[in-house]
Amino acid sequence: MGANPSDAVHRVVIIGGGFGGLYAAKALRRTPIKVTLLDKRNFHLFQPLLYQVATGGLSPGDIASPIRAILAGHKNIQVLLAEVKDIDPKEQKVTLDDAELTYDTLVVATGVSHDYFGNEHWQKLAPGLKTVEDAREIRRRILFAFEAAEKELDPEKRRAWMTFVLIGGGTTGVELAGALAEIAHKTLKNEFINIDTTQAKILLLQGNDRLLPSYPADLSAEAKISLERLGVTVKTGTRVTDIQEHIVTFKSKDGPPEQIQAQTSLWTAGVKASSMGKVLENCTGVQRDQSGRVLVNPDLTIAKYPNIFVIGDLANFSHGQEESLPGVAPVAMQEGQYVANLIQQRLKGKTLPDFHYVDRGSLAVIGRNSAVIDLGFIRLKGFIAWLIWSFLHIYFLIGFDNRVIIFIQWAWSYLTSKRGDRLITEDR
Amino acid sequence: MGANPSDAVHRVVIIGGGFGGLYAAKALRRTPIKVTLLDKRNFHLFQPLLYQVATGGLSPGDIASPIRAILAGHKNIQVLLAEVKDIDPKEQKVTLDDAELTYDTLVVATGVSHDYFGNEHWQKLAPGLKTVEDAREIRRRILFAFEAAEKELDPEKRRAWMTFVLIGGGTTGVELAGALAEIAHKTLKNEFINIDTTQAKILLLQGNDRLLPSYPADLSAEAKISLERLGVTVKTGTRVTDIQEHIVTFKSKDGPPEQIQAQTSLWTAGVKASSMGKVLENCTGVQRDQSGRVLVNPDLTIAKYPNIFVIGDLANFSHGQEESLPGVAPVAMQEGQYVANLIQQRLKGKTLPDFHYVDRGSLAVIGRNSAVIDLGFIRLKGFIAWLIWSFLHIYFLIGFDNRVIIFIQWAWSYLTSKRGDRLITEDR
Repeated sequence: MGANPSDAVHRVVIIGGGFGGLYAAKALRRTPIKVTLLDKRNFHLFQPLLYQVATGGLSPGDIASPIRAILAGHKNIQVLLAEVKDIDPKEQKVTLDDAELTYDTLVVATGVSHDYFGNEHWQKLAPGLKTVEDAREIRRRILFAFEAAEKELDPEKRRAWMTFVLIGGGTTGVELAGALAEIAHKTLKNEFINIDTTQAKILLLQGNDRLLPSYPADLSAEAKISLERLGVTVKTGTRVTDIQEHIVTFKSKDGPPEQIQAQTSLWTAGVKASSMGKVLENCTGVQRDQSGRVLVNPDLTIAKYPNIFVIGDLANFSHGQEESLPGVAPVAMQEGQYVANLIQQRLKGKTLPDFHYVDRGSLAVIGRNSAVIDLGFIRLKGFIAWLIWSFLHIYFLIGFDNRVIIFIQWAWSYLTSKRGDRLITEDR
Repeated sequence: MGANPSDAVHRVVIIGGGFGGLYAAKALRRTPIKVTLLDKRNFHLFQPLLYQVATGGLSPGDIASPIRAILAGHKNIQVLLAEVKDIDPKEQKVTLDDAELTYDTLVVATGVSHDYFGNEHWQKLAPGLKTVEDAREIRRRILFAFEAAEKELDPEKRRAWMTFVLIGGGTTGVELAGALAEIAHKTLKNEFINIDTTQAKILLLQGNDRLLPSYPADLSAEAKISLERLGVTVKTGTRVTDIQEHIVTFKSKDGPPEQIQAQTSLWTAGVKASSMGKVLENCTGVQRDQSGRVLVNPDLTIAKYPNIFVIGDLANFSHGQEESLPGVAPVAMQEGQYVANLIQQRLKGKTLPDFHYVDRGSLAVIGRNSAVIDLGFIRLKGFIAWLIWSFLHIYFLIGFDNRVIIFIQWAWSYLTSKRGDRLITEDR
């Protein structure tokens, strides 16, 4: 405790067990302070593979690890299953459902949720993909649609059951469209009597002029070609103007409104800050951007409160670069690590230079054996990119057993096009 | 089609995709008839391992396979996701939600559900374990109890969170108690700060004088000793008289009523016939036993209707033996196979001798490396029994990929005491 300027043990409260919060906690595991990590879920979720759960390729348990298990054995870290209701930055207190916690340093890393851009009633009609429950619901809808089509005698209604509209052509939309095409063309191919699953229509609608707008233009073009080769219809420059039960209305830039009958619509478009963004604004007056993300200082603290950090998807960090940092796992990991280092330096009465993100590239997968990768110094596409994508995703999975199992499941499903977890389960 | 006495193709409708229905369908896959398998779920569930899902050792997808995938490629077998509403045995019709099907031969194999012996209101307080949803709910309750105990400051309330009551000491009760003890003593041991999970109290209440009453007495005694060694308190000859929220009341034969404060109660006692039993009674007048199971003829048909078979847990078959056949997977498999053979013989104008069950033994697992096995000619207990139990369960899993993955998960969790799928997920 000698390094602690006051005699009492320094208390760090971290809200959120995603990549940001978890990396901060792990980096503090040998520091003589008391860390409390709060999350409303008991597990860390590897979101980059959530689309695989939504399409039956992996089980929820494969891409999630109990936060407790990840941090087990570190007596200075306590994990609590709790939802934060409020923050009092003057009293340095966090209010939970049923208790209060005091902190010396607070780290807020609660991420983002879907943004329906004011059309919140679309949520039921076109669910988004952020949680395990979302993934199970999307899986249920996709698989049930083929079951219903098999029973449907009316050709028009059958077509509607076999039409899938994905709204939003970022990473999630592209990956989900590729997996859906694989299901229709490979996995289910020989399993039905009345329908030909390869006739399923998969429509990917993208408002922007190109897919994956954060990637270089040639990789966007490659993604489009790959998806079309898999049987996906890609419409860029096209905005959805209305979603009704079974009917989606959309409009390309200069065209008239078009309609398509589809029983299954999925939302893969925007995200907005989780509710802790609003809580922070209310209690600290901090500024937020259009998506509700919190504007942070160059050291990831917020205005007026040098002992409150905001990291990960919830933070808008735009110092020394054209655009704010993207909401991806590597940014959150590096921010979590930085904050832990800064806390350690401050305990010694020192500080650190401003946070600087090291971009190691970005990658997205398209179906079974194609991906696009931009590593800065090299751009890859196709099978080699897919291999690298697979390797990196398995590598960054937390928990060794998960890695082994996922590797085997992948190898198996790659060889056979099978998907092991195709369960239609009901939530009560 | 030459073997078919009439010119039209013989139509077999099978209700239920458990072991009985699935084995019947598979055995008919090369017979020139039309088979329709109906199930309200899209997957076959390997129920003997459901307790592993309820305790986070396996994922639902590991012990379930899509019925479609199992029967894929057989053009004479159609699988439909459907719930049967009614049967008309005179018109030979089955009514679904939204359609009707005619049959020449009907096979009913819809199994059993929980029996609360008239206390149906106990279901919410002490859920049973029959479905994937049940398993997820039990997993949620068990894991949440430890999370709540970690946060609870009141010692009495904390004890109630760490007390688990299992009602019923048959196979499910014994296996669940063993797994729960393993979680408390091994898996979670180093993951909490405020509680010592090895202090959890696990109480197994059994109405009968001994656990596993269908086994030889010495194996029942061995099961009790093994569970007690794992830290489970076993009370035989003890009946539950009341379940309230947080309080279970029970009574041993000559003793006074006792009460225990427990936040988590689980129902591992009786089963009763699924609702198709009642439907069959209403439309055919067939007799049923106390549990609602349908009394079947020696050839598994029912009285008055030689073209209606009832198999598996739903059937009460008691010809040529003291007690009716037990509700276990091998009985259902052999019955399904028999019915398929009989249908094939009948198409040729022949018949078969009465059904005869070949008992190859019974087995139950107790915790991480102990089991009891009665193979008739040999009785085993302990580690060797556990190895055989593991091998047989993996062997009978349907779907090769599941087997490989479960084998690895088991090897891994055996070496580490880890449990990979410890997710608390909410049903909406």
